[in-house]
Amino acid sequence: MVSDGMGPASLSLTRSFRQFRDNLNYDDILLLDKHQIGVSRTRSNNSLVTDSAAGADVFSCGLKSYNGAIGVDPFKNPCGTVLEAAKLDGYKTGLVVTTRITDATPAAFSAHVDYRFQEDQIAEHQLGYYPLGRVVDLIIGGGRCHFYPRNTHTPFNDGFGDAGCRADNRNLIQEAINDGWSYVGDRAGFDSLQDGNNVTFPLLALLADTDIPYDIDRNSSIHPSLAEQTLTALTALENATKDSDKGFFILIEGSRIDHAGHDNDPAAQVREVLAYDDAFKVAKDFADNSDVETIILSTSDHETGGLATTRQVSPSYPDYLWYPEVLLNASHSGEYTSAHLRESSLKLSNLEDLKNFVVNEILHKDLGIKNPSNEEINYLIKHATTARYFLNNMVSFRSQTGWSTHGHSAVDVNVYGYSNTDSGLIKIYNALAGNHENTEIGQFMANYLELDLSSVTQKIKDTVHSPRIKQDELSLDSDDTLIDNHEHHHVY
Amino acid sequence: MVSDGMGPASLSLTRSFRQFRDNLNYDDILLLDKHQIGVSRTRSNNSLVTDSAAGADVFSCGLKSYNGAIGVDPFKNPCGTVLEAAKLDGYKTGLVVTTRITDATPAAFSAHVDYRFQEDQIAEHQLGYYPLGRVVDLIIGGGRCHFYPRNTHTPFNDGFGDAGCRADNRNLIQEAINDGWSYVGDRAGFDSLQDGNNVTFPLLALLADTDIPYDIDRNSSIHPSLAEQTLTALTALENATKDSDKGFFILIEGSRIDHAGHDNDPAAQVREVLAYDDAFKVAKDFADNSDVETIILSTSDHETGGLATTRQVSPSYPDYLWYPEVLLNASHSGEYTSAHLRESSLKLSNLEDLKNFVVNEILHKDLGIKNPSNEEINYLIKHATTARYFLNNMVSFRSQTGWSTHGHSAVDVNVYGYSNTDSGLIKIYNALAGNHENTEIGQFMANYLELDLSSVTQKIKDTVHSPRIKQDELSLDSDDTLIDNHEHHHVY
Repeated sequence: MVSDGMGPASLSLTRSFRQFRDNLNYDDILLLDKHQIGVSRTRSNNSLVTDSAAGADVFSCGLKSYNGAIGVDPFKNPCGTVLEAAKLDGYKTGLVVTTRITDATPAAFSAHVDYRFQEDQIAEHQLGYYPLGRVVDLIIGGGRCHFYPRNTHTPFNDGFGDAGCRADNRNLIQEAINDGWSYVGDRAGFDSLQDGNNVTFPLLALLADTDIPYDIDRNSSIHPSLAEQTLTALTALENATKDSDKGFFILIEGSRIDHAGHDNDPAAQVREVLAYDDAFKVAKDFADNSDVETIILSTSDHETGGLATTRQVSPSYPDYLWYPEVLLNASHSGEYTSAHLRESSLKLSNLEDLKNFVVNEILHKDLGIKNPSNEEINYLIKHATTARYFLNNMVSFRSQTGWSTHGHSAVDVNVYGYSNTDSGLIKIYNALAGNHENTEIGQFMANYLELDLSSVTQKIKDTVHSPRIKQDELSLDSDDTLIDNHEHHHVY
Repeated sequence: MVSDGMGPASLSLTRSFRQFRDNLNYDDILLLDKHQIGVSRTRSNNSLVTDSAAGADVFSCGLKSYNGAIGVDPFKNPCGTVLEAAKLDGYKTGLVVTTRITDATPAAFSAHVDYRFQEDQIAEHQLGYYPLGRVVDLIIGGGRCHFYPRNTHTPFNDGFGDAGCRADNRNLIQEAINDGWSYVGDRAGFDSLQDGNNVTFPLLALLADTDIPYDIDRNSSIHPSLAEQTLTALTALENATKDSDKGFFILIEGSRIDHAGHDNDPAAQVREVLAYDDAFKVAKDFADNSDVETIILSTSDHETGGLATTRQVSPSYPDYLWYPEVLLNASHSGEYTSAHLRESSLKLSNLEDLKNFVVNEILHKDLGIKNPSNEEINYLIKHATTARYFLNNMVSFRSQTGWSTHGHSAVDVNVYGYSNTDSGLIKIYNALAGNHENTEIGQFMANYLELDLSSVTQKIKDTVHSPRIKQDELSLDSDDTLIDNHEHHHVY
């Protein structure tokens, strides 16, 4: 399990938010807290601050690569992944995410390209169009767009985007269906899986064109939670392996903790972490009810945002506190609220109407802010189409939540481990208790499953992995980090 | 061992700084890193963000109290400490710090007052002027000033302050000498202790009026390092207990990691953390050479500064990196450099001379900054007497180090543990591996030493602990946190 972008301060923030919301004691903690075994050092091969691609290669291939690398080593040679090796060894495999399935973390387990923005090519690998053929048995997440040509409407419109992203004319969803995948593209289809008891393998469930909405914004009649996705996946994989002497390997990602960090949106982040904690509970309950030794590892690839659980808001010496009630009062993310403002502002030609809308709908109703300054209101009126960061800063400032960047930071991240057997727990502790390099996590998974990644590396050395992009897109290559800004991903 | 104010990002910052400085591999880590066993949750009884007083009460008394509390519970009742109970049980005791010995962390083990700023009273308790009599056998640190009357020169002038702070007329150093303490007040006196082999107990070694200088500024001919202090203390306490069936309890604090956080000074902080790591090595080597089961616990009371190991320095999407070389180029702290500028500016009446001094001495020589902007130079000329934060921000900005506050934050802090025996290690791991409330650390120490803190609490209930301050000083009481700003401590 990967809590993308969740650093140590995210835990402190979320734990206190939950205690405040539910009126709990200070020692009533997250489930994750109860299973922390150590921390992981995150730097990549070419930078003190990793991106999510290099940060996932360490888990999938057990090696450090450069920022932007997807399933390739520092020399851009494809590297065999834990998921691929597990599949070749007879295990079933799955990927569950809340962002695009073609995004860095799931891609690093199931594709091999030089740069993470080659998402068209990543989608092809994930369906089996590369030397190993199909190695993924189950996919649940967002990211239909790189499975469809640009300007083509998807068959299932969930209201959160309505067109494909592919530069070529391939319709990979149709190709997948033709190849025998069962395809699910909306909530009704997801529900038909009956919590994983009615799954025909291989399963391709793409529930949004890009991201599944933040949990704070999620309409449960349209999108399942990460916990529901997790339950469905685990049940399906258990059923599919019950007569096998091998089990399954699955990656489950709370993808958008990272996005809330990039957005500097603390109200969205605490709900994302809680949704991840819920998914961890589903996994733990699954293990506890399983007769098969099951190991759950949970960690982050890096921290996002330089989050600090306090913020000095005036030149005078700061109080020692922060205000969780501000996050509780916010009922939507800045992503949602800024889209709400942008769309409405285009319809409201009257300045007074727009002002009332800003004050009553955006600030009061969406964000729970009752004391905006005139400067803030005027800024929002003037920048009604580009207000996301400003709105998030209003929430951050009032809750006294600090951020140092819209990118990533280099702080160590937490590692959580659980097993339903003592022998499993001992193996986890022996390998990963305390402070470890992130590569050791991938190496542990390979060792635990007795996988030979180097033999997989040999089998995939002829994978087409070089950029298939136009020269004007290649110029973006010099700033690999830019592509982690999910607001920009439509560019690639 | 307490690494005051050291949060998880301090480790990442220092580790990468050291790797860069010494051209080491990314997996060549601090000694502390090799002994991390978990993390600790730090909130106090009355705030999500603790101060160092409440943050030390959890270690000394094993309970959560309010910000500002020194050895008292939430109702301001004195609480028995691990140090006191150990002393009453026959152990020798020691306190080693790099700030004032009357500051919050050492005070919480050896004094009982309602508010941390009552440092005059804290000094009295530390010498034994309270119901238990003397319980501290060895003191090495700074903070002479609360042992001397105001406007009185100390007998040992180390060039870093030269007057007492006490509001009354007592000379506690003379009283201590009269009571049988051996007193040491300078480097020559410290050296006469012969690494702890020539110590007459009880020992009062006060090596600075206030703080011992930051390690980056320290002149080793004037002030010993924390590692030297630690070696002297451990050797002396070992010698003093070699014929006893009891050993000793000692608090060793890297006090000024916190100050570098308050100052937002990354160049000073990485050297403070390295000095603390060196002291940890002295303690570990001591344990490894001891025939007696020895337990070393190291943790922080809280994080300071909201430190982030990256910082967005322009509106465009940030690069994923930070620059350790900027911290290496700085040869002094902002504390030192700003004092250097302040003092020199008062002597330089010629504007051109002042400008040259700012560019050549302050920026180039002290801080290694060769590319100041005209705006920066002009600011420093204009604010030559109050430039500390500005200078530190120049270093932070150029290294792309982020801070959210000059106060504390609520992130969990690291816990390190070591023992020279398997049984000791097992006890540490059973009690403190993973994520724990900070109170569990104090409770573990009491349990390990089989101490009864409540019986001590009974014995000290009549301690004079209420404020003995004038009414105009009491008004500061409403902002307990203010008093943690070490720049202001002379007020109290």
